[in-house]
Amino acid sequence: MGVHRCRRCQADSVIYMRQHRLALCEPHFVEWVERMTLGFIKKHRMFEPEDRVLVAVSGGKDSLSLWSILLKLGYQADGLYIDLGIDAGCGYSKRSGEHVAKFALQVVPGAKLHLLDLAALYGKTVPEMAGRRKGGRRKLCSVCGLVKRHEMNRAARELGYSVIATGHNLDDEAAVLFGNVLHWEAEYLVRQSPVLPADDLGLVKRAKPLARFYERETAAYAIVGNIDYIVDECPFSLGATSLRLKEVLNSMEDRSAGTKLNFYFSFLRARDNSLFPGYERPDLNPCCKCGQATGASGLCAFCRLV
Amino acid sequence: MGVHRCRRCQADSVIYMRQHRLALCEPHFVEWVERMTLGFIKKHRMFEPEDRVLVAVSGGKDSLSLWSILLKLGYQADGLYIDLGIDAGCGYSKRSGEHVAKFALQVVPGAKLHLLDLAALYGKTVPEMAGRRKGGRRKLCSVCGLVKRHEMNRAARELGYSVIATGHNLDDEAAVLFGNVLHWEAEYLVRQSPVLPADDLGLVKRAKPLARFYERETAAYAIVGNIDYIVDECPFSLGATSLRLKEVLNSMEDRSAGTKLNFYFSFLRARDNSLFPGYERPDLNPCCKCGQATGASGLCAFCRLV
Repeated sequence: MGVHRCRRCQADSVIYMRQHRLALCEPHFVEWVERMTLGFIKKHRMFEPEDRVLVAVSGGKDSLSLWSILLKLGYQADGLYIDLGIDAGCGYSKRSGEHVAKFALQVVPGAKLHLLDLAALYGKTVPEMAGRRKGGRRKLCSVCGLVKRHEMNRAARELGYSVIATGHNLDDEAAVLFGNVLHWEAEYLVRQSPVLPADDLGLVKRAKPLARFYERETAAYAIVGNIDYIVDECPFSLGATSLRLKEVLNSMEDRSAGTKLNFYFSFLRARDNSLFPGYERPDLNPCCKCGQATGASGLCAFCRLV
Repeated sequence: MGVHRCRRCQADSVIYMRQHRLALCEPHFVEWVERMTLGFIKKHRMFEPEDRVLVAVSGGKDSLSLWSILLKLGYQADGLYIDLGIDAGCGYSKRSGEHVAKFALQVVPGAKLHLLDLAALYGKTVPEMAGRRKGGRRKLCSVCGLVKRHEMNRAARELGYSVIATGHNLDDEAAVLFGNVLHWEAEYLVRQSPVLPADDLGLVKRAKPLARFYERETAAYAIVGNIDYIVDECPFSLGATSLRLKEVLNSMEDRSAGTKLNFYFSFLRARDNSLFPGYERPDLNPCCKCGQATGASGLCAFCRLV
């Protein structure tokens, strides 16, 4: 192979993206990430400059990079940090929140950061909510996802944001797709998309502007940009199915560069070319307590939980 | 776990099927395989007792087991062996043919075995046909598949069989499905099925009665039944994509028994529940030389090859 040089300026200190056979020096890599993100936002009509975007930030590399990129691209992007109350002996949520707060102060001082503390609002942390459920800790990840989706949506509605942006990267999306394919869960498959539209029951539009980037690319972007993110994975995610699926995809990627990219993008193309028939969303009703859309009659899953 | 005992007769020498949590002694295993095959044939309306079935036999465990099972179940099943002319320094086709001939004479003496020798018919073996193509040996597997499909169909039509049965097992089908999913090849995905109907351009109905069995189950059936099959894989299959995909699926199966079964059957269910829209077959024409259906105008891919 020889030494890689930046395709733009021939510099010899580069970030090499094997799946694209593309080597770029740090400044050109940053420029590339931002330009590709802009293209992806436009292609999927995620949002316009006049939209108020709420970025769900966890303190990790993806969401902090996303917030930074959106602001650099000129979008109106504020942050939302949900304190899930995960301690697990390492003060995980507390440390995550500190990374977010520091980032907001130092890197994006013009933007707003909204803080939402589950324990203060509902008297319970996510592990406490999950602990009361059958399945206990094994269900924690699904409870956590449910809570985050509900609270992101509630916050966006109450604060007047038209779009929620999350930092999901290609590795995340490919793993979810792989999981959905292993069980052929039609409803999830048909709905998996880098952008989900708003509905008339108060679901706010959601977008994943980084879904075209490998995890190592978002990590490189964060490192190059001196973004001080929380490196640890959530302590509860160890052994989670999503990590196992990522391992399998990583081993396939190692053998054949571009596997994840092709898997995800060929899926999006097949979907756009009507591989699946028109998806009929099941009838939804407003939750009788919080008002958010639910397939259940009466209380939504979140309100039954808290 | 303790020692497994036969679920039927409590015998302690058993074949254990982890994905079904089912242990059966040898006689009950054989009975189980045959009963499940019958159920699968009926469920997918593969063929009826009055159909004349042509079993494509390679000399391997799957196809020889299939032939034996179909006869035991009372179907009219004859064999077709295609001598592909693969030598590869180990006389692969020659040895395979010997296994088939011996099996036909000793195990199913009432059935007919049709032999078809490519080199005698077309003056070329499969490696010779593939060698003339761009891509050479790497294309050999696809040329071999093309040739087998063409010749099986031609033989079935000329000899008056209404169905072609092949020995594909669950590992084969899951690997093909996995490959199709990795690239979201809509046309292949939509058509992947344990049974493919005949069409009015002379395509004979095809069925895969063993597609619900793991490879280790068809191997166990062959071993228990003293079927003397060729154990080696085709020497050209080493490094083939399908083997890599099988490895990945095997590693997932090791971690979670039933992965392959769930993957394949949830796909079939999703398809039956209209996950995919009505498939519009592209317009086909009869080949101007052999008369078999082709998407090309003029010569079909097989006739262009030979």
